[in-house]
Amino acid sequence: MLRWLTAGESHGPALVATIDGLPAGVVVSSDDLAGALARRRLGHGRGARMSFERDDVEFLGGVRHGVTLGSPIAIRVGNSEWPKWQTVMSPDPVAADDLAAANDINAEKEIARNRPLTRPRPGHADLVGMQKYGFDDARPVLERASARETAARVALGEVAARFLDQAYGIRLVSHTVAIGAAAVAEDAPLPTADDVAALDADPVRAFDAAGSAAMVAEVDAAHKDGDTLGGVVEVVVTGLPPGLGSHVHWDRRLDARLAGALMGIQAIKGVEVGDGFRTATRRGSVAHDEMERGADGVIRRRTGRAGGTEGGMSVGGLLRVRAAMKPISTVPRALETVDVASDEPARAIHQRSDVCAVPAAGVVAEAMVALVLAEACLEKFGGDCVAETARNHASYLAAIPASMRTWDDE
Amino acid sequence: MLRWLTAGESHGPALVATIDGLPAGVVVSSDDLAGALARRRLGHGRGARMSFERDDVEFLGGVRHGVTLGSPIAIRVGNSEWPKWQTVMSPDPVAADDLAAANDINAEKEIARNRPLTRPRPGHADLVGMQKYGFDDARPVLERASARETAARVALGEVAARFLDQAYGIRLVSHTVAIGAAAVAEDAPLPTADDVAALDADPVRAFDAAGSAAMVAEVDAAHKDGDTLGGVVEVVVTGLPPGLGSHVHWDRRLDARLAGALMGIQAIKGVEVGDGFRTATRRGSVAHDEMERGADGVIRRRTGRAGGTEGGMSVGGLLRVRAAMKPISTVPRALETVDVASDEPARAIHQRSDVCAVPAAGVVAEAMVALVLAEACLEKFGGDCVAETARNHASYLAAIPASMRTWDDE
Amino acid sequence: MLRWLTAGESHGPALVATIDGLPAGVVVSSDDLAGALARRRLGHGRGARMSFERDDVEFLGGVRHGVTLGSPIAIRVGNSEWPKWQTVMSPDPVAADDLAAANDINAEKEIARNRPLTRPRPGHADLVGMQKYGFDDARPVLERASARETAARVALGEVAARFLDQAYGIRLVSHTVAIGAAAVAEDAPLPTADDVAALDADPVRAFDAAGSAAMVAEVDAAHKDGDTLGGVVEVVVTGLPPGLGSHVHWDRRLDARLAGALMGIQAIKGVEVGDGFRTATRRGSVAHDEMERGADGVIRRRTGRAGGTEGGMSVGGLLRVRAAMKPISTVPRALETVDVASDEPARAIHQRSDVCAVPAAGVVAEAMVALVLAEACLEKFGGDCVAETARNHASYLAAIPASMRTWDDE
Amino acid sequence: MLRWLTAGESHGPALVATIDGLPAGVVVSSDDLAGALARRRLGHGRGARMSFERDDVEFLGGVRHGVTLGSPIAIRVGNSEWPKWQTVMSPDPVAADDLAAANDINAEKEIARNRPLTRPRPGHADLVGMQKYGFDDARPVLERASARETAARVALGEVAARFLDQAYGIRLVSHTVAIGAAAVAEDAPLPTADDVAALDADPVRAFDAAGSAAMVAEVDAAHKDGDTLGGVVEVVVTGLPPGLGSHVHWDRRLDARLAGALMGIQAIKGVEVGDGFRTATRRGSVAHDEMERGADGVIRRRTGRAGGTEGGMSVGGLLRVRAAMKPISTVPRALETVDVASDEPARAIHQRSDVCAVPAAGVVAEAMVALVLAEACLEKFGGDCVAETARNHASYLAAIPASMRTWDDE
Repeated sequence: MLRWLTAGESHGPALVATIDGLPAGVVVSSDDLAGALARRRLGHGRGARMSFERDDVEFLGGVRHGVTLGSPIAIRVGNSEWPKWQTVMSPDPVAADDLAAANDINAEKEIARNRPLTRPRPGHADLVGMQKYGFDDARPVLERASARETAARVALGEVAARFLDQAYGIRLVSHTVAIGAAAVAEDAPLPTADDVAALDADPVRAFDAAGSAAMVAEVDAAHKDGDTLGGVVEVVVTGLPPGLGSHVHWDRRLDARLAGALMGIQAIKGVEVGDGFRTATRRGSVAHDEMERGADGVIRRRTGRAGGTEGGMSVGGLLRVRAAMKPISTVPRALETVDVASDEPARAIHQRSDVCAVPAAGVVAEAMVALVLAEACLEKFGGDCVAETARNHASYLAAIPASMRTWDDE
Repeated sequence: MLRWLTAGESHGPALVATIDGLPAGVVVSSDDLAGALARRRLGHGRGARMSFERDDVEFLGGVRHGVTLGSPIAIRVGNSEWPKWQTVMSPDPVAADDLAAANDINAEKEIARNRPLTRPRPGHADLVGMQKYGFDDARPVLERASARETAARVALGEVAARFLDQAYGIRLVSHTVAIGAAAVAEDAPLPTADDVAALDADPVRAFDAAGSAAMVAEVDAAHKDGDTLGGVVEVVVTGLPPGLGSHVHWDRRLDARLAGALMGIQAIKGVEVGDGFRTATRRGSVAHDEMERGADGVIRRRTGRAGGTEGGMSVGGLLRVRAAMKPISTVPRALETVDVASDEPARAIHQRSDVCAVPAAGVVAEAMVALVLAEACLEKFGGDCVAETARNHASYLAAIPASMRTWDDE
Repeated sequence: MLRWLTAGESHGPALVATIDGLPAGVVVSSDDLAGALARRRLGHGRGARMSFERDDVEFLGGVRHGVTLGSPIAIRVGNSEWPKWQTVMSPDPVAADDLAAANDINAEKEIARNRPLTRPRPGHADLVGMQKYGFDDARPVLERASARETAARVALGEVAARFLDQAYGIRLVSHTVAIGAAAVAEDAPLPTADDVAALDADPVRAFDAAGSAAMVAEVDAAHKDGDTLGGVVEVVVTGLPPGLGSHVHWDRRLDARLAGALMGIQAIKGVEVGDGFRTATRRGSVAHDEMERGADGVIRRRTGRAGGTEGGMSVGGLLRVRAAMKPISTVPRALETVDVASDEPARAIHQRSDVCAVPAAGVVAEAMVALVLAEACLEKFGGDCVAETARNHASYLAAIPASMRTWDDE
Repeated sequence: MLRWLTAGESHGPALVATIDGLPAGVVVSSDDLAGALARRRLGHGRGARMSFERDDVEFLGGVRHGVTLGSPIAIRVGNSEWPKWQTVMSPDPVAADDLAAANDINAEKEIARNRPLTRPRPGHADLVGMQKYGFDDARPVLERASARETAARVALGEVAARFLDQAYGIRLVSHTVAIGAAAVAEDAPLPTADDVAALDADPVRAFDAAGSAAMVAEVDAAHKDGDTLGGVVEVVVTGLPPGLGSHVHWDRRLDARLAGALMGIQAIKGVEVGDGFRTATRRGSVAHDEMERGADGVIRRRTGRAGGTEGGMSVGGLLRVRAAMKPISTVPRALETVDVASDEPARAIHQRSDVCAVPAAGVVAEAMVALVLAEACLEKFGGDCVAETARNHASYLAAIPASMRTWDDE
């Protein structure tokens, strides 16, 4: 059983991520985490905060001398701007005078002052969060609802990804397939994990030069118009064994768990496995992946329309899932809203300048997929150290009869 | 905490569904369950099995005199064809002679005999299920992977739906929005729970006459061509309070849980909340739901693009989610596959004649949404009987300040 | 992940047990279940209902031809007295006339009639159950709170026990160590699974002749006095590998999970691992299990005071846990109580004649321990069929260095 | 749903505790946490480390200006000795030279050096932890298995306890009832939460002067003999509503959850609810709590033998549970063991000087009980802020008919 929790507010002292259930023996360092967090800040169309922010990240538990111990792993991601937020976001009570003084800090940026936030922003958790939790101010809501929290997931996902690679040779990559109306070609080649560096170097993390150029242009146009954009990201995984997840109960299906994990990312409104919605428009004769046995006796599927799952299980080899992200809700030309502290119509505050966060969403999606797959592998293979679970994985594959092999030996 | 399990094989003695955590005091009868199961068999394009099958359904626990007791509810859905399957699917060991004799039963339908199923069907769990569980025959896999299992979910969903309505006035409806290339108009009006009878009377469970006719034609064309179709269903919920789910952790987000539940239905490959993938193509200025305060002081959102969630919480009122179903995998003009018991290429067996199961998938989707919402309501409102949880719901709404009201009093 | 639910009322149509997560390939039949249920009725001091009752038990899912399929296993345990309860406990609404007529059925036994039960019995769930669930009658509470429900657990436990034996050679036995003031000697030898038949033949399921005689006398004396008795049972497990459970988080500790499972049995008020409370009276120098290396190089613990766990993990070999059962609450010389439908003092109804249910409690405890161990093994070893999990278990033991071996090769 | 994780090694940089699901509006500060952690160090018979250690504790998330936000709460408990452990326990890789140099730090205390720990201590997780996780050194095991981890639980328990008091008026206290052979009188009065200060001032946290003196003498005698002691602690809770937990499923029983939580504390080997094992020796006529209706119409139980649960639910009012702790395993006159790196017999290392940790165990037990009760209350009452859950609690009590009242109005 793999389970994990994140905590921390966007402008609080730190984010904290804790994961229990990863085996001992995974090689990982805080430099690895910092690298993963840096990838989360990538992408054309990100505002100022993203570019200068350098994550202060460390393990507080579960790792010794660069190797996991089998105990819960705790990661702290510090907030580099904490000094200027320490009054407004102090966990402990603060003196009334200090709080009053905090109203003058960063006066041009409402978000950083202690003034109550009473104009809920459309597309955000603000209004419903106040209703649910009984607040008369949206700050306690938006501090947690912010996508800053995904830094904690990316850190955990990095540990999970290293585990998957070291134990089973499973590797992940994400890329951007659409921003606004611009998209990569439907038949564009898929990246593999070997392409991560190239993707990270692309301004929108796309794997298709024409598509990338179109998306950059789309971002620039929206920026000029004071608008924002969403898009679609895809996560591609290679090296999967057959049989992760299960058909026997809905919540054990790998596709169900991936869908929940991806839809659980802030701003995601749609999820697909393989060709997804496109598959629903096709006829059955051209919607599935027919099988054939190669000259080497290995069974291969001719196509990958299903995205690598059948019956809620990984079929082995390549997995492909997509997530659709809505445009950033904080639109420079502010959306209309109300003020819950007055009867006057209002404009939603706007406090950041990102046009598009889609390239970063791919990195977050990759992390979520890694966490789901790590859990599915541990359920299937058990084991308390990397050597043990790797051994169980190998002996499982070896025990599948030759007539049912669906992978190449290497 | 609401939790539930289903069990049972497609041609076994029965399906069994058990749910723990529903309050005492829900009014429900086995006739209600039978009605729900009958709805699951609806739709133009369903084959013979669907039309004559009458579900034998009963409560085995948790209900007395038509009212739930607060204890776990168990439902048995009998298999009307059990007499002819009792040798092939006997839970207990059978004599070798009886098993041999079973090879002659229903000789024209391979699926009903005891012959090993060694030609895995593309798009099904067959091959990967054999690999995962160590079988040399796909029968143990397909018996459980079959969509027949959704009858158990529909029965549970009916209990959940009655609970939602009786405790909170929350009501659900599902409809078909696309079959193959045919779809209802984008701006077609949404049905409400009052339209269930009309929808169930429509051959494809569509709420738009033109769309319905197009979809019927699509089904007829596919049938003529010996092919199958998928499509898209939508579940619409009314009467929701604000604040179901939570922004504070990914797996507590209502949208994440809905996505997992919908993707956990057999043959679903894509899930959307609100406008979903379409939202990803829009600019931020026209992608969100702006708010305004009415003359009556109530805050209203001008549009419903988000589908009724913000920050992973229900905003209150209407919720709208979609699921994309792939075409039925068992294509009359059988797909190519392999035989794991020989080296010869093979054709996948074909044992049923449905062209399209999309209308029924809406009913299953409705059940899954009902179960997710029942859980979310119980987390938010607690309570061990309907009166208690209803009281907590009412006092929650009453405690939201007038300046934050987002619903009409009635 | 192993998870299971039971459902059903004491006098309802049936109990239902469902378990998800057991591997494929476990050999088990409904005769095995019937045998386990018969053991649950054993013991000197049981009343009439126990002796004539023959459980009607069957698998409804998850098993085919005597072998588990990897899918959820569902078991139905029928109520042999259902015909006389079918009006009073009908799941569906009944006509008022039929209900009125039911007041005459079994008129001498209040419990079997439809009269409201308004005199809550001390020691039972009656009063608090009415408070919690909003009932004005205790029937809906006592029907589920009854120990009859343990039949469902015993059935599941039998499947789990067969899995443990077939996959890993782990075997369980339970015995009675005390009834009232009578107890077996502290240094009496422990039974093993080979002694089950002998234990089941003993009138109180004790493994010590003198202790058994004393306990029988204790039961007879209480019976003569119109009183009831509790006692203590012990479950002994052999063949465990080291390392089930984990020290890394409290709820993964095997001892914590065993304690929860045993305390979760009706009427259990205390739980011990190994010497338990006695250990708390000892000094450290004589409270632990010192280790030594044998001439064969194997490390052995000199004593078994800890009961087979250290740091919340099985140390391998023998596990020993105890549970203390309170006397049956329905005392023939009825306890004083109130009537919630009147202001008069009252006597609690008394509807059954058992003096002592301790021997049967051992069988239930055995089932709970089997379920906990099955879950712990699957977490450690993974695997979807018996062959796979057995292989992983064997390779785990083989990989422990010779210098750390704590078991004999066989 | 309340869920929580702790992380961190005994000599690592920090412990981390995260809890998700507590409502917004709980008033709590880091001073409160520090106070709770100081209580955990109390007790005659604790060694040097306990007395000088001052916990460096802070909230990293979930709390703002002394009030919880409804988001996950994260607490960091720093290790005051981290500077001298930072090489040996560094999460990141360290240079070989630095590691070698670390062998000289604190040379007289083996535990603080980097030398492999190959002589597993009886009564500890050392040996089985190495077997399970594939280590050839016990350090990674003992660092996590250490009772130091309970500091994280005590911090969380403090937050839970404040929530229980502020929302429902539920209060907790723990006291020592036995150390070794010395115990308080069976009929000694029970403390209430008002006695916490007096108990904390007592050298062994006992509520009975004679018992306290006997226990102090017992500790002194053991200390003189170079030995260690265990004992029994009791947690008493007041102000509970009826109906926490449930009789409907074993794992929802409050007693089962309390037993699991208490047995999940390091060194606990036995758990009792109410009179526990003593109840098993009694006859039914004197083992239960008879009820009577007072002149004020309130139903009262005449005794508290059951400890405050019936049918697995709180009966309301007072709850009483006990835990038996084994003597400290690290005995000054070291126990015999083996060396897994050699064939020679060995003595277990001894690195601390505590004689008895029972008084502190009471504080940990209190924390675990608080966490279980907080979860049970939130399941019963729901609610996302203190005001909401308190309102639901009050309306639940108000809705119980006068004829079923079991508590005094105030």
